[in-house]
Amino acid sequence: MSRRERVIDALQAGQARLITAFGALDDAVTFGTHSWERPGGGGGTARVLEGGSVLERAGINFSAVYGDAVPPSLAAAHPGSEGKPYFATGLSMVFHPRNPYAPAFHANYRYFEVGGEDEQSDVWWFGGGADMTPNYPFAEDATHFHRTLKAQCDRHPVGDYRALKETCDRYFYIKHRSEMRGVGGIFFDELSPVGAGDFGTDFAFVWDGVKTLEDAYLPVLKKRKDTPYGERERRWQLMRRGRYAEFNLVYDRGTTFGLQTGGHIEAILMSLPPYAHWAFDYQPEAGSPEAEMLTFLQPRDWVSAELESRRAVSE
Amino acid sequence: MSRRERVIDALQAGQARLITAFGALDDAVTFGTHSWERPGGGGGTARVLEGGSVLERAGINFSAVYGDAVPPSLAAAHPGSEGKPYFATGLSMVFHPRNPYAPAFHANYRYFEVGGEDEQSDVWWFGGGADMTPNYPFAEDATHFHRTLKAQCDRHPVGDYRALKETCDRYFYIKHRSEMRGVGGIFFDELSPVGAGDFGTDFAFVWDGVKTLEDAYLPVLKKRKDTPYGERERRWQLMRRGRYAEFNLVYDRGTTFGLQTGGHIEAILMSLPPYAHWAFDYQPEAGSPEAEMLTFLQPRDWVSAELESRRAVSE
Repeated sequence: MSRRERVIDALQAGQARLITAFGALDDAVTFGTHSWERPGGGGGTARVLEGGSVLERAGINFSAVYGDAVPPSLAAAHPGSEGKPYFATGLSMVFHPRNPYAPAFHANYRYFEVGGEDEQSDVWWFGGGADMTPNYPFAEDATHFHRTLKAQCDRHPVGDYRALKETCDRYFYIKHRSEMRGVGGIFFDELSPVGAGDFGTDFAFVWDGVKTLEDAYLPVLKKRKDTPYGERERRWQLMRRGRYAEFNLVYDRGTTFGLQTGGHIEAILMSLPPYAHWAFDYQPEAGSPEAEMLTFLQPRDWVSAELESRRAVSE
Repeated sequence: MSRRERVIDALQAGQARLITAFGALDDAVTFGTHSWERPGGGGGTARVLEGGSVLERAGINFSAVYGDAVPPSLAAAHPGSEGKPYFATGLSMVFHPRNPYAPAFHANYRYFEVGGEDEQSDVWWFGGGADMTPNYPFAEDATHFHRTLKAQCDRHPVGDYRALKETCDRYFYIKHRSEMRGVGGIFFDELSPVGAGDFGTDFAFVWDGVKTLEDAYLPVLKKRKDTPYGERERRWQLMRRGRYAEFNLVYDRGTTFGLQTGGHIEAILMSLPPYAHWAFDYQPEAGSPEAEMLTFLQPRDWVSAELESRRAVSE
């Protein structure tokens, strides 16, 4: 099998695993299947669940696209790639749970080749990562999430958790708000720099990463999905989702890449929340869990966080 | 008075006029006042109304900012301006009515100077315009709106309605959806090209433009604000507002300029709707007024539109 075939197989298998794991949360609603083709080359399959009792909107999308000329968003980050053929495949998911106490979750793993036919080109790289966006400050959730990702990193020579965690913190930052999008996770634009990596080593990390997502997020979701809440928590959740929409439409590189390459627009914008709310200069009540979020979200060492001292919401 | 002082006076007077006209729609809720200063120079006053019976969220914002170096979004459109001092003042408003049958409304008028002290510089220009974004296909509303703006244009030598209408149609286009944002209106980046205009002539057009906004939009709002509606119309409205949020965060130059110059973030993002909704690949029922919107929104000659044949919703 060619490199790109191996990655496609793994990402499609990962999609199926995740559908099984997260689809089991809801008896009444299942992940629909929406396959699409890209006129310029390639296509994908969006698996989407909406209106669930646990997941209000969730998408787990696979795509593999190619074209004659690298799109601008990619060329800008990879000088010398302009005008060359490219191949890109990815598995991308966003979960917006219904319960305001359950964090939103995002992950994607992707693989690129630039400059011609598969095995002749050594311009390839993996990108991706996983991050979590809570609305309420449960330190133990962030710690579980980060420890699980760190364990994944520790299983691989290319998994430098500290570096990948810092990249994630830098990236998932809403600059115009001076706010973090969430508690982060791991993220990388190029797992090994182009030309310097071993395909098998990088591929093993990514495949392990896909398999780790369930362990990282599902326990958190299960713990929070039935927490009682009211209008106050719902409104706060919708405002935080407004921030999520801002990040994705203004800064998210995957979204920009998707809009420029002309992928399936509904699959690309699957990341947007089911409902969002904007209110002018809203300030949560001092001392409330909502008010605590801005300090809570500042980057920190979640792996060794002192759990007890961070708990703002009694459990 | 200097040029910039004259513009500031006019825009502030316009803000007060509009507050009076649109504030009268609601007995219980008024426009709040939020003044802000920009650390780098200047400031503004955001007048914001939220939770009204007629206007669910509305902002009428004045700002006047200056700095030592033209921000990137402005420099890109004006080669040669890089690194020069600039001054920018504007009056910007967005109304999101509560009733789904009432269109959203946006207008702004702005004035720029680049390259040093006021009267010594002849690098100045006016930008702006007004446009309307209905959720339902009432041709007569679009016709009233466009006829009113055309009458304004016809009162001035620089008011080329056809050209300004076409610029508006080109600009308020959601490229990734291949959809118009609304029925358009008039829009211009530079009323007279830099260096070629007469300040008094351009200023007169802009001041008339500010005064015309009430005539263009208020009758439409009054006509639709009490139309009975249910969950179906509300959901559709929220999805259309999702499109509005997409346009503003991905394409809107005023938003980009604001995010880059570090204006008051809540005033800049006042344009975002109070609530928005995203649903995967939603297709309105064939033959419904909602389904008609995509063809309804295609650019057309609204001034001479055949009103009767366009009416999709019986009145």
